[in-house]
Amino acid sequence: MKIIDGKKVSLLKEAELIKRIKDFPRSPELAILMVGERADSNTYVKQKIKAAERIGIKTRLFTFPTSVTKEEVIQEIEKLNRNKNIDGIILQLPLPAQLTARTIIDHIHPSKDVDGLTTLNQGKLLTGDVAFAPATARGVVSLLKGSNVSLVGKRVVVVGRSLLVGRPAALLLEKEGGTIIQCHSKTRKLAELTKLADILVVAVGKPKFITEKYVKREQVVVDVGITVVEKKGIKRLVGDVDFEKVSKMVKMISPVPGGVGPMTVVSLFENLCDAYERKEIK
Amino acid sequence: MKIIDGKKVSLLKEAELIKRIKDFPRSPELAILMVGERADSNTYVKQKIKAAERIGIKTRLFTFPTSVTKEEVIQEIEKLNRNKNIDGIILQLPLPAQLTARTIIDHIHPSKDVDGLTTLNQGKLLTGDVAFAPATARGVVSLLKGSNVSLVGKRVVVVGRSLLVGRPAALLLEKEGGTIIQCHSKTRKLAELTKLADILVVAVGKPKFITEKYVKREQVVVDVGITVVEKKGIKRLVGDVDFEKVSKMVKMISPVPGGVGPMTVVSLFENLCDAYERKEIK
Repeated sequence: MKIIDGKKVSLLKEAELIKRIKDFPRSPELAILMVGERADSNTYVKQKIKAAERIGIKTRLFTFPTSVTKEEVIQEIEKLNRNKNIDGIILQLPLPAQLTARTIIDHIHPSKDVDGLTTLNQGKLLTGDVAFAPATARGVVSLLKGSNVSLVGKRVVVVGRSLLVGRPAALLLEKEGGTIIQCHSKTRKLAELTKLADILVVAVGKPKFITEKYVKREQVVVDVGITVVEKKGIKRLVGDVDFEKVSKMVKMISPVPGGVGPMTVVSLFENLCDAYERKEIK
Repeated sequence: MKIIDGKKVSLLKEAELIKRIKDFPRSPELAILMVGERADSNTYVKQKIKAAERIGIKTRLFTFPTSVTKEEVIQEIEKLNRNKNIDGIILQLPLPAQLTARTIIDHIHPSKDVDGLTTLNQGKLLTGDVAFAPATARGVVSLLKGSNVSLVGKRVVVVGRSLLVGRPAALLLEKEGGTIIQCHSKTRKLAELTKLADILVVAVGKPKFITEKYVKREQVVVDVGITVVEKKGIKRLVGDVDFEKVSKMVKMISPVPGGVGPMTVVSLFENLCDAYERKEIK
Protein backbone atom coordinates (compact mmCIF):
# COMPACT_ATOMS: atom_id res chain seq x y z
CA MET A 1 0.00 0.00 0.00
CA LYS A 2 1.18 3.48 -0.92
CA ILE A 3 0.12 6.69 0.78
CA ILE A 4 -1.12 9.46 -1.52
CA ASP A 5 0.74 12.37 0.00
CA GLY A 6 -1.37 15.51 -0.33
CA LYS A 7 1.06 17.54 1.72
CA LYS A 8 3.89 16.79 -0.69
CA VAL A 9 1.87 17.33 -3.88
CA SER A 10 0.40 20.56 -2.53
CA LEU A 11 3.87 21.92 -1.72
CA LEU A 12 4.96 21.22 -5.30
CA LYS A 13 1.85 23.05 -6.51
CA GLU A 14 2.60 25.94 -4.16
CA ALA A 15 6.13 26.17 -5.58
CA GLU A 16 4.65 26.32 -9.10
CA LEU A 17 2.31 29.11 -8.03
CA ILE A 18 5.13 31.11 -6.43
CA LYS A 19 7.02 30.90 -9.72
CA ARG A 20 3.93 31.82 -11.72
CA ILE A 21 3.12 34.86 -9.60
CA LYS A 22 6.68 36.22 -9.83
CA ASP A 23 6.00 37.56 -13.31
CA PHE A 24 2.71 39.23 -12.35
CA PRO A 25 2.90 43.05 -12.20
CA ARG A 26 0.91 43.00 -8.94
CA SER A 27 -0.06 40.36 -6.37
CA PRO A 28 -3.38 38.61 -6.99
CA GLU A 29 -5.89 39.43 -4.28
CA LEU A 30 -8.65 37.30 -2.78
CA ALA A 31 -11.64 38.66 -0.85
CA ILE A 32 -12.99 36.25 1.77
CA LEU A 33 -16.46 36.90 3.17
CA MET A 34 -17.37 35.20 6.41
CA VAL A 35 -20.67 35.44 8.27
CA GLY A 36 -20.88 34.62 11.97
CA GLU A 37 -18.40 32.79 14.16
CA ARG A 38 -17.98 29.11 13.48
CA ALA A 39 -14.92 27.34 14.85
CA ASP A 40 -14.52 25.23 11.68
CA SER A 41 -14.96 28.20 9.35
CA ASN A 42 -12.41 30.16 11.36
CA THR A 43 -9.90 27.33 10.99
CA TYR A 44 -10.43 27.02 7.24
CA VAL A 45 -10.17 30.77 6.70
CA LYS A 46 -6.95 30.93 8.74
CA GLN A 47 -5.49 28.09 6.66
CA LYS A 48 -6.31 29.99 3.47
CA ILE A 49 -4.77 33.22 4.74
CA LYS A 50 -1.60 31.42 5.87
CA ALA A 51 -1.23 29.63 2.54
CA ALA A 52 -1.81 32.91 0.69
CA GLU A 53 1.03 34.49 2.66
CA ARG A 54 3.38 31.63 1.81
CA ILE A 55 2.56 31.94 -1.89
CA GLY A 56 2.60 35.72 -2.09
CA ILE A 57 -1.12 36.30 -2.55
CA LYS A 58 -3.01 39.10 -0.82
CA THR A 59 -6.20 38.36 1.08
CA ARG A 60 -8.82 40.69 2.46
CA LEU A 61 -11.16 39.28 5.09
CA PHE A 62 -14.68 40.69 5.53
CA THR A 63 -16.53 39.44 8.60
CA PHE A 64 -20.22 39.98 9.20
CA PRO A 65 -22.27 39.35 12.35
CA THR A 66 -24.67 36.39 12.28
CA SER A 67 -27.54 38.88 12.12
CA VAL A 68 -26.41 40.41 8.81
CA THR A 69 -29.02 40.66 6.05
CA LYS A 70 -28.74 39.21 2.56
CA GLU A 71 -28.77 42.73 1.13
CA GLU A 72 -25.77 43.83 3.18
CA VAL A 73 -23.68 40.88 2.03
CA ILE A 74 -24.73 41.37 -1.58
CA GLN A 75 -23.86 45.07 -1.39
CA GLU A 76 -20.32 44.20 -0.30
CA ILE A 77 -20.04 41.60 -3.09
CA GLU A 78 -21.10 44.18 -5.66
CA LYS A 79 -18.46 46.61 -4.43
CA LEU A 80 -15.86 43.85 -4.73
CA ASN A 81 -17.11 42.94 -8.22
CA ARG A 82 -16.30 46.51 -9.29
CA ASN A 83 -12.95 46.70 -7.48
CA LYS A 84 -10.24 46.17 -10.10
CA ASN A 85 -7.66 45.02 -7.55
CA ILE A 86 -9.81 42.13 -6.37
CA ASP A 87 -9.34 39.01 -8.51
CA GLY A 88 -11.46 36.53 -6.61
CA ILE A 89 -14.34 36.56 -4.12
CA ILE A 90 -15.31 33.64 -1.93
CA LEU A 91 -18.07 33.24 0.60
CA GLN A 92 -17.15 30.91 3.44
CA LEU A 93 -19.87 28.28 3.85
CA PRO A 94 -22.07 27.31 5.60
CA LEU A 95 -24.11 30.47 6.20
CA PRO A 96 -26.50 31.12 9.09
CA ALA A 97 -29.97 29.71 8.44
CA GLN A 98 -31.67 32.99 7.45
CA LEU A 99 -29.35 33.49 4.46
CA THR A 100 -29.79 31.55 1.22
CA ALA A 101 -26.35 30.73 -0.11
CA ARG A 102 -27.55 30.33 -3.72
CA THR A 103 -29.02 33.86 -3.95
CA ILE A 104 -25.93 35.48 -2.47
CA ILE A 105 -23.39 33.42 -4.42
CA ASP A 106 -25.06 34.25 -7.73
CA HIS A 107 -24.21 37.91 -7.13
CA ILE A 108 -20.49 37.14 -7.35
CA HIS A 109 -19.30 38.09 -10.83
CA PRO A 110 -18.57 34.80 -12.67
CA SER A 111 -15.07 36.03 -13.58
CA LYS A 112 -14.25 36.40 -9.85
CA ASP A 113 -16.08 33.27 -8.68
CA VAL A 114 -12.93 31.31 -7.81
CA ASP A 115 -14.93 28.78 -5.78
CA GLY A 116 -16.83 27.92 -8.98
CA LEU A 117 -20.18 27.96 -7.22
CA THR A 118 -22.25 30.43 -9.25
CA THR A 119 -24.95 28.82 -11.38
CA LEU A 120 -23.19 30.01 -14.53
CA ASN A 121 -19.88 28.41 -13.56
CA GLN A 122 -21.70 25.23 -12.56
CA GLY A 123 -23.18 25.25 -16.07
CA LYS A 124 -19.69 25.54 -17.51
CA LEU A 125 -18.72 22.40 -15.62
CA LEU A 126 -21.48 20.62 -17.54
CA THR A 127 -20.78 22.11 -20.96
CA GLY A 128 -17.12 21.19 -20.49
CA ASP A 129 -15.91 24.77 -20.95
CA VAL A 130 -14.77 24.84 -17.30
CA ALA A 131 -14.03 28.32 -15.91
CA PHE A 132 -13.50 27.56 -12.22
CA ALA A 133 -14.02 24.14 -10.71
CA PRO A 134 -14.73 24.10 -6.97
CA ALA A 135 -11.35 23.92 -5.25
CA THR A 136 -11.78 20.54 -3.57
CA ALA A 137 -12.84 18.92 -6.85
CA ARG A 138 -9.85 20.44 -8.64
CA GLY A 139 -7.73 19.28 -5.71
CA VAL A 140 -8.88 15.67 -6.06
CA VAL A 141 -7.93 15.54 -9.75
CA SER A 142 -4.68 17.35 -9.11
CA LEU A 143 -3.79 14.97 -6.27
CA LEU A 144 -4.40 11.90 -8.44
CA LYS A 145 -2.43 13.31 -11.35
CA GLY A 146 0.35 14.47 -9.03
CA SER A 147 0.52 10.92 -7.67
CA ASN A 148 0.79 9.44 -11.18
CA VAL A 149 -2.62 7.81 -11.13
CA SER A 150 -3.92 7.71 -14.69
CA LEU A 151 -7.62 8.35 -15.24
CA VAL A 152 -8.27 7.45 -18.89
CA GLY A 153 -10.55 4.45 -19.16
CA LYS A 154 -10.75 4.01 -15.40
CA ARG A 155 -13.90 3.24 -13.45
CA VAL A 156 -14.35 5.96 -10.90
CA VAL A 157 -16.91 5.58 -8.15
CA VAL A 158 -17.78 8.87 -6.45
CA VAL A 159 -19.71 8.56 -3.21
CA GLY A 160 -21.51 11.83 -2.48
CA ARG A 161 -23.06 14.35 -4.84
CA SER A 162 -22.59 17.74 -3.20
CA LEU A 163 -22.18 20.83 -5.35
CA LEU A 164 -18.86 21.57 -3.66
CA VAL A 165 -17.26 18.18 -4.12
CA GLY A 166 -19.07 15.06 -5.32
CA ARG A 167 -20.69 16.42 -8.45
CA PRO A 168 -17.88 18.63 -9.75
CA ALA A 169 -15.26 15.97 -8.93
CA ALA A 170 -17.26 13.45 -10.97
CA LEU A 171 -17.45 15.82 -13.94
CA LEU A 172 -13.74 16.64 -13.82
CA LEU A 173 -12.74 13.01 -13.46
CA GLU A 174 -14.98 12.14 -16.40
CA LYS A 175 -13.38 14.92 -18.44
CA GLU A 176 -10.05 13.19 -17.77
CA GLY A 177 -11.42 10.03 -19.37
CA GLY A 178 -12.91 8.19 -16.42
CA THR A 179 -16.28 6.44 -16.39
CA ILE A 180 -18.28 7.65 -13.43
CA ILE A 181 -20.57 5.80 -11.07
CA GLN A 182 -22.13 8.48 -8.89
CA CYS A 183 -23.44 7.13 -5.61
CA HIS A 184 -25.40 8.94 -2.93
CA SER A 185 -27.49 8.46 0.17
CA LYS A 186 -30.30 6.73 -1.75
CA THR A 187 -27.98 4.25 -3.48
CA ARG A 188 -28.82 0.64 -2.68
CA LYS A 189 -26.19 -2.08 -2.26
CA LEU A 190 -23.45 0.52 -2.17
CA ALA A 191 -20.66 -1.97 -1.48
CA GLU A 192 -21.42 -3.79 -4.75
CA LEU A 193 -20.78 -0.55 -6.62
CA THR A 194 -17.76 0.72 -4.67
CA LYS A 195 -16.06 -2.62 -5.34
CA LEU A 196 -16.32 -1.95 -9.07
CA ALA A 197 -14.03 1.06 -8.76
CA ASP A 198 -10.50 1.40 -10.01
CA ILE A 199 -10.59 4.73 -8.19
CA LEU A 200 -12.91 5.35 -5.25
CA VAL A 201 -13.58 8.96 -4.19
CA VAL A 202 -15.52 9.41 -0.96
CA ALA A 203 -17.10 12.72 0.01
CA VAL A 204 -19.99 12.17 2.36
CA GLY A 205 -18.84 13.74 5.63
CA LYS A 206 -19.46 10.63 7.73
CA PRO A 207 -16.45 9.55 9.80
CA LYS A 208 -15.13 6.07 8.92
CA PHE A 209 -18.16 5.41 6.69
CA ILE A 210 -16.15 3.32 4.21
CA THR A 211 -14.91 0.17 5.90
CA GLU A 212 -13.05 -2.84 4.52
CA LYS A 213 -16.26 -4.37 3.20
CA TYR A 214 -16.57 -1.58 0.60
CA VAL A 215 -13.18 -2.03 -1.02
CA LYS A 216 -11.05 -4.59 -2.80
CA ARG A 217 -7.37 -4.94 -3.62
CA GLU A 218 -5.76 -2.85 -6.37
CA GLN A 219 -8.03 0.12 -5.73
CA VAL A 220 -6.99 3.73 -5.34
CA VAL A 221 -8.96 5.46 -2.57
CA VAL A 222 -9.30 9.22 -2.17
CA ASP A 223 -10.83 10.32 1.12
CA VAL A 224 -12.36 13.79 0.89
CA GLY A 225 -14.21 13.75 4.23
CA ILE A 226 -13.00 15.88 7.09
CA THR A 227 -14.89 15.68 10.36
CA VAL A 228 -13.68 16.98 13.70
CA VAL A 229 -14.14 14.22 16.26
CA GLU A 230 -13.59 14.83 19.96
CA LYS A 231 -12.52 11.94 22.14
CA LYS A 232 -11.51 12.35 25.78
CA GLY A 233 -11.16 16.10 25.24
CA ILE A 234 -8.80 15.70 22.29
CA LYS A 235 -9.93 16.91 18.87
CA ARG A 236 -8.89 14.96 15.79
CA LEU A 237 -9.69 15.16 12.09
CA VAL A 238 -11.30 11.97 10.83
CA GLY A 239 -11.96 11.04 7.20
CA ASP A 240 -14.86 9.22 5.55
CA VAL A 241 -12.68 6.13 5.20
CA ASP A 242 -11.68 3.83 8.04
CA PHE A 243 -8.02 4.31 7.24
CA GLU A 244 -6.61 1.69 9.54
CA LYS A 245 -8.66 -1.12 8.06
CA VAL A 246 -8.96 0.02 4.44
CA SER A 247 -5.30 0.96 4.02
CA LYS A 248 -4.35 -2.68 4.63
CA MET A 249 -6.32 -3.76 1.59
CA VAL A 250 -5.97 -1.21 -1.18
CA LYS A 251 -3.16 -0.17 -3.51
CA MET A 252 -3.11 3.55 -2.74
CA ILE A 253 -4.97 5.72 -0.26
CA SER A 254 -5.03 9.39 0.74
CA PRO A 255 -4.99 9.98 4.49
CA VAL A 256 -6.91 12.51 6.60
CA PRO A 257 -5.30 14.86 7.46
CA GLY A 258 -2.60 15.26 4.82
CA GLY A 259 -4.55 14.12 1.77
CA VAL A 260 -7.15 16.20 -0.06
CA GLY A 261 -7.18 18.98 2.59
CA PRO A 262 -3.91 20.71 1.58
CA MET A 263 -4.84 20.26 -2.11
CA THR A 264 -8.08 22.20 -1.61
CA VAL A 265 -6.24 25.26 -0.37
CA VAL A 266 -3.65 25.32 -3.14
CA SER A 267 -6.33 24.64 -5.78
CA LEU A 268 -8.25 27.70 -4.64
CA PHE A 269 -5.17 29.80 -5.31
CA GLU A 270 -4.66 28.16 -8.69
CA ASN A 271 -8.21 29.27 -9.50
CA LEU A 272 -7.34 32.76 -8.24
CA CYS A 273 -4.25 32.95 -10.46
CA ASP A 274 -6.36 31.77 -13.43
CA ALA A 275 -8.81 34.60 -12.66
CA TYR A 276 -5.95 37.10 -12.43
CA GLU A 277 -4.44 36.01 -15.72
CA ARG A 278 -7.74 36.08 -17.60
CA LYS A 279 -8.36 39.59 -16.32
CA GLU A 280 -4.91 41.17 -16.53
CA ILE A 281 -3.10 39.26 -19.25
CA LYS A 282 -5.11 39.30 -22.43
CA MET B 1 -41.57 -8.33 -22.81
CA LYS B 2 -43.60 -5.14 -22.75
CA ILE B 3 -43.33 -2.30 -25.22
CA ILE B 4 -42.91 1.17 -23.72
CA ASP B 5 -45.38 3.06 -25.85
CA GLY B 6 -44.12 6.60 -26.38
CA LYS B 7 -46.91 7.40 -28.79
CA LYS B 8 -49.54 6.57 -26.19
CA VAL B 9 -47.84 8.37 -23.30
CA SER B 10 -47.18 11.43 -25.47
CA LEU B 11 -50.86 11.64 -26.45
CA LEU B 12 -51.85 11.61 -22.78
CA LYS B 13 -49.33 14.39 -22.17
CA GLU B 14 -50.73 16.32 -25.14
CA ALA B 15 -54.22 16.01 -23.70
CA GLU B 16 -52.94 17.40 -20.39
CA LEU B 17 -51.35 20.33 -22.21
CA ILE B 18 -54.52 21.09 -24.16
CA LYS B 19 -56.41 21.24 -20.87
CA ARG B 20 -53.72 23.39 -19.26
CA ILE B 21 -53.63 25.90 -22.11
CA LYS B 22 -57.41 26.33 -22.11
CA ASP B 23 -57.19 28.63 -19.10
CA PHE B 24 -54.40 30.77 -20.56
CA PRO B 25 -55.55 34.25 -21.67
CA ARG B 26 -53.51 33.91 -24.87
CA SER B 27 -51.82 31.03 -26.71
CA PRO B 28 -48.21 30.37 -25.79
CA GLU B 29 -45.88 31.08 -28.70
CA LEU B 30 -42.63 29.41 -29.69
CA ALA B 31 -40.02 30.93 -32.01
CA ILE B 32 -38.03 28.37 -33.98
CA LEU B 33 -34.78 29.48 -35.59
CA MET B 34 -33.37 27.31 -38.34
CA VAL B 35 -30.18 27.89 -40.31
CA GLY B 36 -29.67 26.24 -43.69
CA GLU B 37 -31.51 23.37 -45.27
CA ARG B 38 -31.04 19.99 -43.67
CA ALA B 39 -33.51 17.25 -44.44
CA ASP B 40 -33.46 15.94 -40.85
CA SER B 41 -33.86 19.42 -39.34
CA ASN B 42 -36.74 20.12 -41.71
CA THR B 43 -38.46 16.94 -40.57
CA TYR B 44 -38.00 17.72 -36.88
CA VAL B 45 -39.22 21.29 -37.30
CA LYS B 46 -42.29 20.14 -39.20
CA GLN B 47 -43.07 17.63 -36.42
CA LYS B 48 -42.86 20.41 -33.85
CA ILE B 49 -45.11 22.73 -35.84
CA LYS B 50 -47.68 19.98 -36.36
CA ALA B 51 -47.72 19.04 -32.69
CA ALA B 52 -48.04 22.71 -31.73
CA GLU B 53 -51.12 23.00 -33.96
CA ARG B 54 -52.68 19.93 -32.33
CA ILE B 55 -52.10 21.36 -28.86
CA GLY B 56 -53.08 24.95 -29.61
CA ILE B 57 -49.66 26.54 -29.43
CA LYS B 58 -48.46 29.19 -31.86
CA THR B 59 -45.15 28.82 -33.63
CA ARG B 60 -43.16 31.31 -35.64
CA LEU B 61 -40.44 29.92 -37.89
CA PHE B 62 -37.38 31.99 -38.78
CA THR B 63 -35.17 30.53 -41.49
CA PHE B 64 -31.71 31.80 -42.33
CA PRO B 65 -29.48 30.94 -45.28
CA THR B 66 -26.42 28.77 -44.55
CA SER B 67 -24.26 31.84 -45.12
CA VAL B 68 -25.83 33.81 -42.26
CA THR B 69 -23.46 35.42 -39.74
CA LYS B 70 -23.48 34.85 -35.99
CA GLU B 71 -24.38 38.53 -35.50
CA GLU B 72 -27.50 38.29 -37.65
CA VAL B 73 -28.83 35.29 -35.74
CA ILE B 74 -28.04 36.93 -32.40
CA GLN B 75 -29.80 40.12 -33.49
CA GLU B 76 -32.97 38.15 -34.19
CA ILE B 77 -32.69 36.35 -30.84
CA GLU B 78 -32.39 39.66 -29.04
CA LYS B 79 -35.51 40.98 -30.75
CA LEU B 80 -37.36 37.82 -29.69
CA ASN B 81 -36.04 38.17 -26.14
CA ARG B 82 -37.72 41.58 -25.96
CA ASN B 83 -40.95 40.45 -27.63
CA LYS B 84 -43.54 39.94 -24.89
CA ASN B 85 -45.66 37.59 -26.99
CA ILE B 86 -42.83 35.12 -27.47
CA ASP B 87 -42.57 32.63 -24.61
CA GLY B 88 -39.84 30.35 -25.90
CA ILE B 89 -36.98 30.48 -28.39
CA ILE B 90 -35.24 27.43 -29.82
CA LEU B 91 -32.40 27.12 -32.26
CA GLN B 92 -32.62 24.00 -34.39
CA LEU B 93 -29.31 22.12 -34.21
CA PRO B 94 -26.87 21.30 -35.73
CA LEU B 95 -25.67 24.61 -37.17
CA PRO B 96 -23.44 25.09 -40.21
CA ALA B 97 -19.75 24.79 -39.33
CA GLN B 98 -18.96 28.52 -39.27
CA LEU B 99 -21.41 29.18 -36.42
CA THR B 100 -20.61 28.31 -32.82
CA ALA B 101 -23.79 27.01 -31.21
CA ARG B 102 -22.63 27.85 -27.67
CA THR B 103 -22.10 31.57 -28.37
CA ILE B 104 -25.45 31.94 -30.11
CA ILE B 105 -27.45 29.87 -27.61
CA ASP B 106 -26.16 31.90 -24.67
CA HIS B 107 -27.88 34.95 -26.14
CA ILE B 108 -31.29 33.36 -25.62
CA HIS B 109 -32.81 34.81 -22.46
CA PRO B 110 -32.73 32.03 -19.82
CA SER B 111 -36.45 32.52 -19.14
CA LYS B 112 -37.22 31.74 -22.82
CA ASP B 113 -34.63 28.97 -23.22
CA VAL B 114 -37.15 26.14 -23.47
CA ASP B 115 -34.52 23.77 -24.87
CA GLY B 116 -32.57 24.25 -21.61
CA LEU B 117 -29.28 24.67 -23.43
CA THR B 118 -27.97 28.01 -22.15
CA THR B 119 -25.02 27.72 -19.78
CA LEU B 120 -27.12 29.17 -16.98
CA ASN B 121 -29.89 26.61 -17.40
CA GLN B 122 -27.31 23.84 -17.64
CA GLY B 123 -25.99 25.12 -14.28
CA LYS B 124 -29.48 24.86 -12.85
CA LEU B 125 -29.57 21.21 -13.87
CA LEU B 126 -26.51 20.72 -11.67
CA THR B 127 -27.67 22.78 -8.70
CA GLY B 128 -30.97 20.87 -8.80
CA ASP B 129 -33.04 24.05 -9.22
CA VAL B 130 -34.06 22.92 -12.73
CA ALA B 131 -35.61 25.64 -14.90
CA PHE B 132 -35.82 23.88 -18.28
CA ALA B 133 -34.40 20.43 -18.91
CA PRO B 134 -33.58 19.64 -22.54
CA ALA B 135 -36.75 18.20 -24.06
CA THR B 136 -35.42 14.73 -24.85
CA ALA B 137 -34.11 14.29 -21.31
CA ARG B 138 -37.43 15.40 -19.86
CA GLY B 139 -39.11 13.06 -22.33
CA VAL B 140 -37.10 10.06 -21.13
CA VAL B 141 -38.10 10.63 -17.50
CA SER B 142 -41.68 11.35 -18.47
CA LEU B 143 -41.85 8.18 -20.58
CA LEU B 144 -40.55 6.01 -17.75
CA LYS B 145 -42.91 7.55 -15.21
CA GLY B 146 -45.82 7.37 -17.65
CA SER B 147 -45.05 3.66 -18.09
CA ASN B 148 -45.06 3.09 -14.31
CA VAL B 149 -41.33 2.40 -14.06
CA SER B 150 -40.18 3.54 -10.62
CA LEU B 151 -36.77 5.19 -10.38
CA VAL B 152 -36.04 5.44 -6.66
CA GLY B 153 -33.11 3.27 -5.69
CA LYS B 154 -32.67 1.97 -9.24
CA ARG B 155 -29.37 1.55 -11.03
CA VAL B 156 -29.53 3.57 -14.21
CA VAL B 157 -26.86 3.17 -16.86
CA VAL B 158 -26.80 6.04 -19.34
CA VAL B 159 -24.73 5.42 -22.47
CA GLY B 160 -23.79 8.74 -24.05
CA ARG B 161 -23.00 12.08 -22.45
CA SER B 162 -24.24 14.72 -24.87
CA LEU B 163 -25.48 18.06 -23.55
CA LEU B 164 -28.83 17.49 -25.25
CA VAL B 165 -29.55 14.04 -23.91
CA GLY B 166 -27.05 11.87 -22.03
CA ARG B 167 -25.93 14.33 -19.39
CA PRO B 168 -29.26 16.01 -18.60
CA ALA B 169 -31.09 12.66 -18.65
CA ALA B 170 -28.59 11.31 -16.10
CA LEU B 171 -29.09 14.33 -13.84
CA LEU B 172 -32.89 14.14 -14.02
CA LEU B 173 -32.93 10.39 -13.44
CA GLU B 174 -30.64 10.88 -10.45
CA LYS B 175 -32.95 13.58 -9.12
CA GLU B 176 -35.72 10.96 -9.23
CA GLY B 177 -33.66 8.75 -6.92
CA GLY B 178 -31.65 6.67 -9.37
CA THR B 179 -27.97 5.86 -9.06
CA ILE B 180 -26.23 6.76 -12.30
CA ILE B 181 -23.49 5.02 -14.19
CA GLN B 182 -22.57 7.39 -17.02
CA CYS B 183 -20.86 5.62 -19.90
CA HIS B 184 -19.33 7.16 -23.01
CA SER B 185 -17.07 6.45 -25.97
CA LYS B 186 -13.98 6.02 -23.76
CA THR B 187 -15.67 3.55 -21.41
CA ARG B 188 -13.93 0.18 -21.31
CA LYS B 189 -15.79 -3.12 -20.94
CA LEU B 190 -19.09 -1.40 -21.58
CA ALA B 191 -21.14 -4.61 -21.54
CA GLU B 192 -20.05 -5.30 -17.95
CA LEU B 193 -21.55 -1.98 -16.94
CA THR B 194 -24.72 -2.04 -19.04
CA LYS B 195 -25.54 -5.42 -17.50
CA LEU B 196 -25.57 -3.79 -14.06
CA ALA B 197 -28.54 -1.63 -15.05
CA ASP B 198 -32.08 -1.87 -13.81
CA ILE B 199 -32.77 0.80 -16.40
CA LEU B 200 -30.59 1.24 -19.48
CA VAL B 201 -30.81 4.50 -21.42
CA VAL B 202 -28.94 4.60 -24.72
CA ALA B 203 -28.22 7.87 -26.54
CA VAL B 204 -25.19 7.49 -28.77
CA GLY B 205 -26.61 7.85 -32.27
CA LYS B 206 -25.16 4.57 -33.57
CA PRO B 207 -27.74 2.29 -35.19
CA LYS B 208 -28.16 -1.08 -33.44
CA PHE B 209 -25.16 -0.37 -31.20
CA ILE B 210 -26.65 -2.22 -28.23
CA THR B 211 -26.99 -5.91 -29.05
CA GLU B 212 -28.08 -8.83 -26.90
CA LYS B 213 -24.64 -9.13 -25.32
CA TYR B 214 -25.11 -5.78 -23.54
CA VAL B 215 -28.33 -6.66 -21.74
CA LYS B 216 -29.79 -9.13 -19.31
CA ARG B 217 -33.28 -10.21 -18.30
CA GLU B 218 -35.46 -7.96 -16.11
CA GLN B 219 -34.01 -4.77 -17.55
CA VAL B 220 -35.91 -1.75 -18.80
CA VAL B 221 -34.35 -0.34 -21.97
CA VAL B 222 -34.93 3.18 -23.30
CA ASP B 223 -33.63 3.76 -26.81
CA VAL B 224 -33.03 7.45 -27.52
CA GLY B 225 -31.12 7.04 -30.78
CA ILE B 226 -32.74 8.02 -34.06
CA THR B 227 -30.76 7.49 -37.22
CA VAL B 228 -32.16 7.55 -40.74
CA VAL B 229 -30.92 4.46 -42.53
CA GLU B 230 -31.49 3.96 -46.25
CA LYS B 231 -31.75 0.44 -47.59
CA LYS B 232 -32.72 -0.36 -51.16
CA GLY B 233 -34.00 3.18 -51.58
CA ILE B 234 -36.28 2.99 -48.54
CA LYS B 235 -35.58 5.28 -45.58
CA ARG B 236 -36.21 3.96 -42.09
CA LEU B 237 -35.60 5.27 -38.59
CA VAL B 238 -33.28 3.01 -36.63
CA GLY B 239 -32.54 3.20 -32.91
CA ASP B 240 -29.32 2.64 -30.96
CA VAL B 241 -30.67 -0.71 -29.78
CA ASP B 242 -30.98 -3.82 -31.92
CA PHE B 243 -34.67 -4.09 -31.14
CA GLU B 244 -35.28 -7.47 -32.67
CA LYS B 245 -32.64 -9.22 -30.60
CA VAL B 246 -32.75 -7.17 -27.40
CA SER B 247 -36.55 -7.13 -27.11
CA LYS B 248 -36.51 -10.92 -26.76
CA MET B 249 -34.43 -10.67 -23.60
CA VAL B 250 -35.51 -7.68 -21.54
CA LYS B 251 -38.56 -6.82 -19.46
CA MET B 252 -39.52 -3.56 -21.14
CA ILE B 253 -38.19 -1.66 -24.14
CA SER B 254 -39.02 1.52 -26.02
CA PRO B 255 -39.09 1.15 -29.81
CA VAL B 256 -37.82 3.46 -32.54
CA PRO B 257 -39.93 5.04 -33.91
CA GLY B 258 -42.71 5.41 -31.35
CA GLY B 259 -40.64 5.57 -28.18
CA VAL B 260 -38.72 8.62 -27.03
CA GLY B 261 -39.31 10.57 -30.27
CA PRO B 262 -42.91 11.64 -29.62
CA MET B 263 -42.03 12.37 -25.96
CA THR B 264 -39.36 14.86 -27.03
CA VAL B 265 -41.87 16.96 -28.94
CA VAL B 266 -44.48 17.06 -26.19
CA SER B 267 -41.80 17.74 -23.55
CA LEU B 268 -40.67 20.81 -25.49
CA PHE B 269 -44.20 22.16 -25.27
CA GLU B 270 -44.39 21.34 -21.56
CA ASN B 271 -41.27 23.47 -21.18
CA LEU B 272 -42.94 26.21 -23.23
CA CYS B 273 -46.03 26.16 -21.03
CA ASP B 274 -43.80 26.33 -17.94
CA ALA B 275 -42.12 29.39 -19.46
CA TYR B 276 -45.49 30.96 -20.23
CA GLU B 277 -46.79 30.38 -16.70
CA ARG B 278 -43.66 31.74 -15.02
CA LYS B 279 -43.89 34.86 -17.15
CA GLU B 280 -47.62 35.52 -17.21
CA ILE B 281 -48.98 33.96 -14.02
CA LYS B 282 -47.06 35.28 -11.07
